[in-house]
Amino acid sequence: MTTQNTAVEAQSFISSADLLNEWIGHRRLTRKAIEAFPEDQFFTYSIGGMRPFAIMVKELIDVSVPGIEGIVTDKWNTDSSWEHSYPEEQRTKAHVLALWDKGTETIIERFPQISEERFRETIMAFGQFEGTVYSTVLYFIDNEVHHRAQGYVYLRSLGIEPPAFWDRN
Amino acid sequence: MTTQNTAVEAQSFISSADLLNEWIGHRRLTRKAIEAFPEDQFFTYSIGGMRPFAIMVKELIDVSVPGIEGIVTDKWNTDSSWEHSYPEEQRTKAHVLALWDKGTETIIERFPQISEERFRETIMAFGQFEGTVYSTVLYFIDNEVHHRAQGYVYLRSLGIEPPAFWDRN
Repeated sequence: MTTQNTAVEAQSFISSADLLNEWIGHRRLTRKAIEAFPEDQFFTYSIGGMRPFAIMVKELIDVSVPGIEGIVTDKWNTDSSWEHSYPEEQRTKAHVLALWDKGTETIIERFPQISEERFRETIMAFGQFEGTVYSTVLYFIDNEVHHRAQGYVYLRSLGIEPPAFWDRN
Repeated sequence: MTTQNTAVEAQSFISSADLLNEWIGHRRLTRKAIEAFPEDQFFTYSIGGMRPFAIMVKELIDVSVPGIEGIVTDKWNTDSSWEHSYPEEQRTKAHVLALWDKGTETIIERFPQISEERFRETIMAFGQFEGTVYSTVLYFIDNEVHHRAQGYVYLRSLGIEPPAFWDRN
């Protein structure tokens, strides 16, 4: 057991702080992409029958925050309908940005509570997605990069220059 | 020095094999996205003045393969014009897929030659992008997810269902 752990450590090089830093950098960039949208088109603009960017962002919020809570507590709300929407009175960019910032705070607070051992444990995220904790976190990040890039096409199509991809500050 | 290394190892949990596995999974999915495009639209279709998907893919090829070679050998071709294009006779999906597969083989061959210590070293990729080796590799992967997602919007806009995002097999 000790030998096995040593072997894993000997070839590992990405720490919890590194991974959190990557994620938070991406969240800063996604926030800028939200800000770049005109208020109305954030909630309505679509290409090829895809969801408006606001709804993709709601998916990111619905996955990342309960996702990190589930990883820390091992309690998952498994009866989610995965239907991402906003109550009528919350359909403003200001509301979504506030939700986004609250989620970022939760991630920064909760992430250090995940132990190194926990990162390599296999979990069933939301009761249905099996993987190690670290690969689940990478999936959350990938999903954010994926949908944000779709928002970039919406912005370009609207004649708006998206924020620089490489700038995570 | 020993204490410092131990501290880093103690909180690290993603190994070289893990990171390679993530990347290769993404490359399998990007390959499927290339395959999903009709031959002509792969090279010509554009939204909002953005580059056709074939050119984005050429960027991914031009970055990832010389990138991994540079990481391993510390030799960088710094006079690249970063103008991603294909000679006229190579503008076929079959040619691009062959280039893609050759790149994947190179990555699989070269990746295990990067030592754990190397992954945390700071490099100047292509003589101009400063970062640790591991963060540079994550950037290559992020850039692939980003452009592939833009290809997904092109596909949806063409009425074609893209490959499932979660399926990396």
